[in-house]
Amino acid sequence: MSEKKSYHMTPEEFRQNGRTVLDWIADYYQRIESFPVLSQIQPGQIRALLPSEPPIDGEAFNNILKDVNNLIIPGLTHWQSPNFFAFFPANVSGPAILGELLSAGLGIQGMLWSTSPACTELETHVLDWLVNMLGLPRKFKSDAAGGGVIQDSASSASLCALLAARERATDYESNQRGCDGRLIAYASTQAHSSIEKAVKIAGLGCQNLRLIQVDDRFALCPDTLAKQIKQDRQAGLIPCFVCATIGTTSSNAIDPLPEIGHICRKEGIWLHVDGAMSGTAALCPEYRYIHDGMELADSYCFNPHKWMFTNFDCDCFYVSNREILIKTLSVLPEYLRNKSTESGAVIDYRDWHIPLGRRFRSLKLWFVIRYYGVDGLRYHIRRHIELAQNFVKWVEKADHFELATPAPLNLVCFRHTSGNTFNQRLLARLNQSGNLYLTHTMLNDQYVLRFCVGQTHTEAHHVYQAWRQIQETATELEKMRF
Amino acid sequence: MSEKKSYHMTPEEFRQNGRTVLDWIADYYQRIESFPVLSQIQPGQIRALLPSEPPIDGEAFNNILKDVNNLIIPGLTHWQSPNFFAFFPANVSGPAILGELLSAGLGIQGMLWSTSPACTELETHVLDWLVNMLGLPRKFKSDAAGGGVIQDSASSASLCALLAARERATDYESNQRGCDGRLIAYASTQAHSSIEKAVKIAGLGCQNLRLIQVDDRFALCPDTLAKQIKQDRQAGLIPCFVCATIGTTSSNAIDPLPEIGHICRKEGIWLHVDGAMSGTAALCPEYRYIHDGMELADSYCFNPHKWMFTNFDCDCFYVSNREILIKTLSVLPEYLRNKSTESGAVIDYRDWHIPLGRRFRSLKLWFVIRYYGVDGLRYHIRRHIELAQNFVKWVEKADHFELATPAPLNLVCFRHTSGNTFNQRLLARLNQSGNLYLTHTMLNDQYVLRFCVGQTHTEAHHVYQAWRQIQETATELEKMRF
Repeated sequence: MSEKKSYHMTPEEFRQNGRTVLDWIADYYQRIESFPVLSQIQPGQIRALLPSEPPIDGEAFNNILKDVNNLIIPGLTHWQSPNFFAFFPANVSGPAILGELLSAGLGIQGMLWSTSPACTELETHVLDWLVNMLGLPRKFKSDAAGGGVIQDSASSASLCALLAARERATDYESNQRGCDGRLIAYASTQAHSSIEKAVKIAGLGCQNLRLIQVDDRFALCPDTLAKQIKQDRQAGLIPCFVCATIGTTSSNAIDPLPEIGHICRKEGIWLHVDGAMSGTAALCPEYRYIHDGMELADSYCFNPHKWMFTNFDCDCFYVSNREILIKTLSVLPEYLRNKSTESGAVIDYRDWHIPLGRRFRSLKLWFVIRYYGVDGLRYHIRRHIELAQNFVKWVEKADHFELATPAPLNLVCFRHTSGNTFNQRLLARLNQSGNLYLTHTMLNDQYVLRFCVGQTHTEAHHVYQAWRQIQETATELEKMRF
Repeated sequence: MSEKKSYHMTPEEFRQNGRTVLDWIADYYQRIESFPVLSQIQPGQIRALLPSEPPIDGEAFNNILKDVNNLIIPGLTHWQSPNFFAFFPANVSGPAILGELLSAGLGIQGMLWSTSPACTELETHVLDWLVNMLGLPRKFKSDAAGGGVIQDSASSASLCALLAARERATDYESNQRGCDGRLIAYASTQAHSSIEKAVKIAGLGCQNLRLIQVDDRFALCPDTLAKQIKQDRQAGLIPCFVCATIGTTSSNAIDPLPEIGHICRKEGIWLHVDGAMSGTAALCPEYRYIHDGMELADSYCFNPHKWMFTNFDCDCFYVSNREILIKTLSVLPEYLRNKSTESGAVIDYRDWHIPLGRRFRSLKLWFVIRYYGVDGLRYHIRRHIELAQNFVKWVEKADHFELATPAPLNLVCFRHTSGNTFNQRLLARLNQSGNLYLTHTMLNDQYVLRFCVGQTHTEAHHVYQAWRQIQETATELEKMRF
């Protein structure tokens, strides 16, 4: 057997090919502004270029990389471009990429403490650090009754929060006998779509999700929430879960945590707080007010993979009572039994989320926090907010543009004064130019452009250039109407 | 702002630090056999070495890497060691690591086709390739009514299959009104624990999971399944989901798909097939029999991150009718609306799984398939099975050892003839030696050792050395009893 070709990449080839990939990535960042930010290809165009059958014989690594250039690049929307202002930043960084590389190289599984203790302990430790870094309540730390875990996304974290809430409300009977259609969940009309998805997945049914109306800043109205809960109780239903949002996806609205929290406490309802993108702002003491009232929450999540220079996937999910979460998700088959688990002295993170397997995701987070330091992270968060606030001022001063809602942090919702169709055409034209990419939302039936600042390499001139192009394109469109 | 330190890693530093990490990984593989396979540290030992507060100032990258050596390495269980025979292989490879690196470097999101068309199209394409490579039914291909998607794990894939089954059985009413405690799911007593977890998450309740008895080879008994379904229907319940397993976790048992499939067809029940580790064997025509009956399945999953040289996470999940899955999981908020989605001409993978965000995971899978070629992959699968079958022969010939059940592929379940306690002590002693790592299970109340061959760099001499140590340790233990 040993005389046959092994097909494996030798260590020497790995070093060599690895350098080629590293250089490719470094070069990619240096030429990233030369690509259209939003991919301009048509459906099926990539697939048409790929062979219909896989190769029987292995190919040279360089050939594969050549195809990345020729076939893949045209089909990318360049999320790391400094001219990417769409959705959320998903900003990555050198230390995060190298942390992900190291994690891939180690190839360990962290499902149980014993399957790689360092994977579990580093994760617990770094998530404790983040409690301090963000000024979150102590109860979320692992030496209190709570603790943090890395999940793939806020969608999955919210689902786990809902499941724990469901079980707490039914004394773990839903896990045993199934849902019975009486459990009720609450979130604002502006909450992320993943809440509706979670309510469906968890068997509550989306008819049992109450989307509570919002105020003129698109924040949840606590009075309406309280009334709805009362009404549901009177109807014999079981309110079990409220999701409040710190920085809604559409418009960055901040739900009033203290009021919502008091209602939840009084009613014995699980309060989950979703701070997916905006939570990172709390690194800076001056933005920590967004977390006011968090001491009333049962769970919280935010995504370093959105705005903290850490590669996807990395959502940090905290609970104030880990026992409830573990009791909700734990299943212990014989083949996973081990002495450490039975000692009760360790965390087995497989009981903290849906998948069993898990990779070493805390490495990249640790790399980012150590490489930037708290000060470095704060510096960039402040810079992004400052750039967004400059944009706010320009919009406010412009004749034909207006803010759609206040912009507390790094997301600006604005529109041209010429109505929905005009804004729709404006957005399409801007994105077709390839020079920048932004997305839209609807607020009070108005078509609104979202301008989100947070890419690692976005500088003042990118934001300024974007604003210039927005104005110029609007002027062109105005002319075309006559 | 521009005169201040940026804190970012410059492109030059990225190249330099990246090379250091690459070399570190290559060196790691060269010295991996010098570490104890199973980490020998005590709970809390890693955390005790980490500073209680994050650094305020950024640190040099080399300092961080130094801590990887000093603090992290001792806390690793070395899954990539050629002496790792525990759980499942989770084998990685050069092209996969570099594919993950490239994906991290690109930092794109594939939640919608439009957010990076290449991410979606390459994934669809490579998953179509795999249908051909594994001889799966054509209906799982994207140009039929089905299609494939990469999920993080078989746990999540099985959950999605269960959700689709739940919705099909209730005409999408469970999504609307919630579960009502009448839906029933079926799997064998040997099915993976994730099925019980999924049944809880989806709101069916684990009392509504019927664990069907197995035959003397630990494969599901179709007659018992049929009887149980009949009984449940008579009780006014709604059978909706059967999970069959191709290669159970405990003992690699292969459930009889043709018989189970016919029952499911007749009863209109969703059949999901879990081939997490063993599915990869079907790359070789001579092992393709494990998939006999797959044409009767509604969904299937297997994990290239288990035994196909592809980094975690990479589970390939197929459905024969994608519309049901999409209708089950789709939620379309305004901020995700776009022309491509509305055209209906594209796949938006966010509707195929639980999270919204997703990274470019097909890159590494594409790299692996192209770098090894189908022949290269087959070569290694055959080699692993051959090594395991050698081990089988040694066990059969040995005086005090016996097979616990037939070993069809790369997993051997065996035991010493001196009873459960002896085997428990034998396992503990072997793993404490640090020379190898294997895990256990219970089969018919017998404590059984699992020996799973599949690591990328496991060769004949590793398996032989493991067997020698198992024999020698058993002899030592026997002596200690007197």
